[in-house]
Amino acid sequence: MNTKLLLTPGPTTIPERITEAMQVSGLHHRSQEFKKLFLEVTSGLKELLGCAHNPVLITGSGTAAMEASLAGVVPVGAKVLVLRAGKFGERWSEMAARLGFKLVELEAEYGSTFSPAEIEKRLLNNPDIKAVCFQYCETSTGAIHNAAEIISLTNKITPDALTLLDAITAIGTLEVNISELGADALIGGSQKALMLPPGLSFVALSDRAVQMLEQVESPAYYLNLRREFKSQLDGSTAWTPAISIIAGLKEALAMIREETPERVFMRHAQLAEATRSGLKELGFKLLAEECPAPGVTAAFPPAGINADELRMKLLKEDHIQIAGGQGKLKGKIIRVGHMGYVFPGDICRLFEAFESVISNR
Amino acid sequence: MNTKLLLTPGPTTIPERITEAMQVSGLHHRSQEFKKLFLEVTSGLKELLGCAHNPVLITGSGTAAMEASLAGVVPVGAKVLVLRAGKFGERWSEMAARLGFKLVELEAEYGSTFSPAEIEKRLLNNPDIKAVCFQYCETSTGAIHNAAEIISLTNKITPDALTLLDAITAIGTLEVNISELGADALIGGSQKALMLPPGLSFVALSDRAVQMLEQVESPAYYLNLRREFKSQLDGSTAWTPAISIIAGLKEALAMIREETPERVFMRHAQLAEATRSGLKELGFKLLAEECPAPGVTAAFPPAGINADELRMKLLKEDHIQIAGGQGKLKGKIIRVGHMGYVFPGDICRLFEAFESVISNR
Repeated sequence: MNTKLLLTPGPTTIPERITEAMQVSGLHHRSQEFKKLFLEVTSGLKELLGCAHNPVLITGSGTAAMEASLAGVVPVGAKVLVLRAGKFGERWSEMAARLGFKLVELEAEYGSTFSPAEIEKRLLNNPDIKAVCFQYCETSTGAIHNAAEIISLTNKITPDALTLLDAITAIGTLEVNISELGADALIGGSQKALMLPPGLSFVALSDRAVQMLEQVESPAYYLNLRREFKSQLDGSTAWTPAISIIAGLKEALAMIREETPERVFMRHAQLAEATRSGLKELGFKLLAEECPAPGVTAAFPPAGINADELRMKLLKEDHIQIAGGQGKLKGKIIRVGHMGYVFPGDICRLFEAFESVISNR
Repeated sequence: MNTKLLLTPGPTTIPERITEAMQVSGLHHRSQEFKKLFLEVTSGLKELLGCAHNPVLITGSGTAAMEASLAGVVPVGAKVLVLRAGKFGERWSEMAARLGFKLVELEAEYGSTFSPAEIEKRLLNNPDIKAVCFQYCETSTGAIHNAAEIISLTNKITPDALTLLDAITAIGTLEVNISELGADALIGGSQKALMLPPGLSFVALSDRAVQMLEQVESPAYYLNLRREFKSQLDGSTAWTPAISIIAGLKEALAMIREETPERVFMRHAQLAEATRSGLKELGFKLLAEECPAPGVTAAFPPAGINADELRMKLLKEDHIQIAGGQGKLKGKIIRVGHMGYVFPGDICRLFEAFESVISNR
């Protein structure tokens, strides 16, 4: 029997090396040994993300890091612009509303991205916005947004607004450099291209975001970004951290360094391209044809094929797990994750399975 | 060389069986397989804690579960009574203040517990309190508080007040039955007697706490207890959960069932007793002499011995890690964790090391 192949857009396959590195029974988070490990991990992330400050690690899912960022660098009650084109964009909106921010939204269709002219209009009409929140890659649709352009527009029209970029499904699949992008908060998670189990997330901050940390009174206690930022300067966390995943992250960063980030990003671009052309050949219709992300591809199956049945067959007959649609796309699409520890052979295996399922129906 | 022995009050030693059970690369949290695992875990916890509802799992440290509980079942702005006698009691106060609750406190000395008469007075003077927050065992001092008595006093004098019990260092070291105690929220964490890495916590709720969940508008988004409670009824989590630790928790609960909870609790009582009498024999002075917890023992070293130097020697020469003091006890005490995967041989090894360090000075 074939081993199980996980091709979902998070969680992703955890390589043996990382599984071994996570076996740290006996490691205490207040020990010198752990502090050293912690600072190695944050400086490794800092290098990968091109930031001036060590990213802040949060024990929690990516959503926790989104909330810590928003509440940490933007004063509650301020007006924020959310750009949404999928389930995770909606999460920014829902979160901002729940936390008491004034919400302005720009919505684009699932699978598409935002028109720069529309963004410009929203910014011009709302000179008092204090933050723009969006996704680099929208995991629910497989779309990539033009982060550099959105940030540059924001910095031009509303220079006081911070840009908060959920890069959870982007980091490790393409170059994400906070300084080059000019973003103020860059959010990542463990269970995507970093090849780790879920339960750890992080936030990289710009200089001015660090300044805002000092000024903003976050309503959060556990997710208080200022407290974590200060505490982590010397390798201590405010609360007991996810020690095993942090130990795994050190190994993940080492693996990326060994392959070199450039080759890792190239591999993702090639896997994404192969997935897209393979799907099109089989008669699938890509959801984000115009703006495809390097880490995940979403597509409508050919006429007569039910997306969820296809997924179930793949899982049952071929031990390959892909994802389905979320929100209003539930039951309508399939999503293939090709990020992290994924190689051309895995995509070949996926397409052999697709072909056999489709030809045998 | 001796293998490293971790005798800190969390994190604790992770048994091989659990390490293996946590290797779940390929397990997706939206799969039927995971939902089944999740419901097995929550019903196992439910059985262990004697509650009517499945406990809610939170991906985060114990502090995250404390915050989710407080903000989830008590309306912000309400008056809460915090009983504090150590660092974790102070954490309740700090958290309640940060979240916008009106704070009434009863403080006891580090190492001691609360006088029932004083509790009664606070309750009588504050008939409008909506919650009483305290620890079952105070990890920073090794003291146990009389949870049953405190809850019974609260229910008698201020029957509308909920009781929120941080049982992080208690669960798995002694019988903690939410129904018998009459508590409304019981908070636990992974990295104590449950023998797991940190990064997962949970909250068990009483019937009326579940009712309050519906009425209270929690300001939290990620730590929104109502959302998690509802979502988890069918084994789904609101956010991506700490899959690997949840898989480990299933194994931990199986290990406790195999040994039987009664024997696990008896083992903890015996380890605690052996630790206390051993320390006294060596001239240590117990910090919580009158109210010692079964999972952790804190003590002042004999005259002329520096607590931190003793700890460092133990670590360097004998590869045994114990903890030091926290807060105002920093540098003054040692704390020995004897919870989870700890057996009489480990305590023997600790005392051989103590004796050799003390006699060789």
